Amino acid sequence: MRMVDLIQKKRDGHPLAKEEIDFIIEGFTGGSIPDYQMSAFLMAVYFQGMDAEETTSLTMAMVNSGDVMDLSGIRGVKVDKHSTGGVGDKTSLIVGPLVAAVGVPVAKMSGRGLGHTGGTIDKLESIAGFNVELTEKEFVNQVNEHKIAIVSQTGNLTPADKKLYALRDVTATVSSIPLIASSIMSKKIASGADAVVLDVKVGSGAFMKSLPAARELAETMVRIGKGVNKKTIAVITDMNQPLGYAVGNANEVMEAVQVLGGRGEAGLTRVCLTVAAHMTVAGGIYAGFDQAYAALAGVLQSGRALTKFKQFIQAQGGNPAVVDNPGELLPRARYQAQLKSPAAGYVQSIVAEQVGTAAMLLGAGRKTKNEPIDHAAGITLQKKVGDKVEYGEVLAYLHSNREITPRAMTMLSESFIIGTQRPEELPVVYDVIE
Amino acid sequence: MRMVDLIQKKRDGHPLAKEEIDFIIEGFTGGSIPDYQMSAFLMAVYFQGMDAEETTSLTMAMVNSGDVMDLSGIRGVKVDKHSTGGVGDKTSLIVGPLVAAVGVPVAKMSGRGLGHTGGTIDKLESIAGFNVELTEKEFVNQVNEHKIAIVSQTGNLTPADKKLYALRDVTATVSSIPLIASSIMSKKIASGADAVVLDVKVGSGAFMKSLPAARELAETMVRIGKGVNKKTIAVITDMNQPLGYAVGNANEVMEAVQVLGGRGEAGLTRVCLTVAAHMTVAGGIYAGFDQAYAALAGVLQSGRALTKFKQFIQAQGGNPAVVDNPGELLPRARYQAQLKSPAAGYVQSIVAEQVGTAAMLLGAGRKTKNEPIDHAAGITLQKKVGDKVEYGEVLAYLHSNREITPRAMTMLSESFIIGTQRPEELPVVYDVIE
Repeated sequence: MRMVDLIQKKRDGHPLAKEEIDFIIEGFTGGSIPDYQMSAFLMAVYFQGMDAEETTSLTMAMVNSGDVMDLSGIRGVKVDKHSTGGVGDKTSLIVGPLVAAVGVPVAKMSGRGLGHTGGTIDKLESIAGFNVELTEKEFVNQVNEHKIAIVSQTGNLTPADKKLYALRDVTATVSSIPLIASSIMSKKIASGADAVVLDVKVGSGAFMKSLPAARELAETMVRIGKGVNKKTIAVITDMNQPLGYAVGNANEVMEAVQVLGGRGEAGLTRVCLTVAAHMTVAGGIYAGFDQAYAALAGVLQSGRALTKFKQFIQAQGGNPAVVDNPGELLPRARYQAQLKSPAAGYVQSIVAEQVGTAAMLLGAGRKTKNEPIDHAAGITLQKKVGDKVEYGEVLAYLHSNREITPRAMTMLSESFIIGTQRPEELPVVYDVIE
Repeated sequence: MRMVDLIQKKRDGHPLAKEEIDFIIEGFTGGSIPDYQMSAFLMAVYFQGMDAEETTSLTMAMVNSGDVMDLSGIRGVKVDKHSTGGVGDKTSLIVGPLVAAVGVPVAKMSGRGLGHTGGTIDKLESIAGFNVELTEKEFVNQVNEHKIAIVSQTGNLTPADKKLYALRDVTATVSSIPLIASSIMSKKIASGADAVVLDVKVGSGAFMKSLPAARELAETMVRIGKGVNKKTIAVITDMNQPLGYAVGNANEVMEAVQVLGGRGEAGLTRVCLTVAAHMTVAGGIYAGFDQAYAALAGVLQSGRALTKFKQFIQAQGGNPAVVDNPGELLPRARYQAQLKSPAAGYVQSIVAEQVGTAAMLLGAGRKTKNEPIDHAAGITLQKKVGDKVEYGEVLAYLHSNREITPRAMTMLSESFIIGTQRPEELPVVYDVIE
């Protein structure tokens, strides 16, 4: 087999056999296939796509390039979740304790963030003492005892995907649905869960800008799941404005506490309940989605989800008192500023991507790996799309430990569009693919 | 400017500005743009193409990446020719002396061959003593005195093209018309001629398999020529069977002698006269194509072309007696075999590519650079498409200094299709683009 012939085959629109995809991924990971051939191949995939069989082969080739987590020591049906990412997306912080509270074991490996804000791991590290590095034994024991542990990704999972992603990033081949789908699914499969609920974000602040594109990605991933006998459900949710009110790290933890206590923003709560309901059905706790949704809404109201969050924090060495007193115990920023409305009317839109960039300028995110994160930095919206505002009313707070620059303020200010008419309500959940 | 953004721009079908193309070619040649970004870009070009302006910019960026020959010391309008390549293509050996005989200065740089047979330089080296390495001064003086010199490419012409071609070769991005056109034209422009006649081959034995593709390549190159004010004419000629009878090196020189003496195979003679006629018109020797064609046909008959070939060989240190006695003085192979017709009938087709591969197996070509060539090796056809053959009649001779393998014989044998009906005559010249 010669790589140049396989590039040509894909370039000419022919599907590749499993053995050919294995050859490519093994050769690339092992170094016998150079980057310059791989990037030409990736661009050919960008234009010609991959069919269901090829995408599944690619996914499994990446899974097989490294270690696969063995979660057999954990009792029960392990259900993982994954979000394709957006601005203010703190669903993992909420959904994890919520489903754990009803008995679904959550054994989650998560990454640090790159971009607008930190990832789940960064957000959890806003909590003093929180330890994201457990041994495998500690991890398994904690899930068996508390039904939840979230740790930083360790081990050599899907090295092929890591190497491939780094190349895609610099060759304009990121935005290819089969490549995105196999990247996500390979990581989920290698993480060892029995079932996966995918939260596919759609809208201006998401990677998938249109509903057809989001649906295609969701369907591709669900098909891969089917192809490898891993129960996979995808929900498509809105990312035309930031999710909830908080965009940052500590402020997102604070908002998670509100939702877990049954006092969260409606849209965010609905997304979390939807994802959690599918997880609990997949986990065999409830018989159907509607029953699960209603039961879980009750769990939020009862305080049981919040109690589980406390146990979880304590188990990983964090201070559980932050749950009762987040305003005092979570890191607070030295500088704060307000964005005031330049007009009376209704919020027409809040450009999520710009809010994210403003948050990054304040220190909430990192542009390159290993950069430190300012856990206290971020943006806390006071208004969402459809809300009525008065002239001069506060639209959002900016927090930072650096001085707040006009650039960040302008970026945030321009993300708000105020108009006189009440806009149509944005959907929260568009579709479920399973 | 960031290369990843330019890859994306091309990927999304937007034309690149001259400055952007300069950035890419300078960066790639200088090493600041890595191969893996360039190959992704090339694949994007493969799918999205390039418009006339982009193709011209790319050509000139490659010209400017290295030296440009200064032929100002040569009197007269310097007219170059280029063939896109085929099997048995010895037109340069014929056309060069022919147009020189009527006063067009031929100052030609040529390459060694890679593939089926040697290139023009390899073929000339079949002649004992022939020296293909002249100093610039010797080169200029010889053209001024004899109107013709053909030397091996020297100097640092179009290094960007060399580097780019090496990458295209291993990333399945060779067959892109704007990339082929700019590669050819950059070399021709850097070679310093005032005008160029392009012989674009079409058919099963050529790189361009279909007439529309050949026409597109021809039009693209002529457009580039216009864009840089270099008179450019393209003729589209047939390569559905080998050109003439000889496929090899010494045997192609022998066939060139036949054509130059007015005793050549009709199709080959017509291709040579067509190319030469356009060259002499571009060179200002004749007023129009028909007049030039008729005059040049007379030059072949008169023996003047053959005399010029002798002068040319002598000027470059070769033995001019080969022209009078090629059978004795050109290298002869130790082994010879005959391919006999398995049936009576008419030759329906001769698959050029397979004849070429058989010739390579006999030692007439090289697979990798720096491999030696067996100048005596090759195939000499006795029949061409449309010829009547008897059962057992010789279709071709095989020559080699290695023992002739069954593989080479089978390859050649399978290239001949014999049928009972006289096939339709193949065109020789399809079109002229100027």
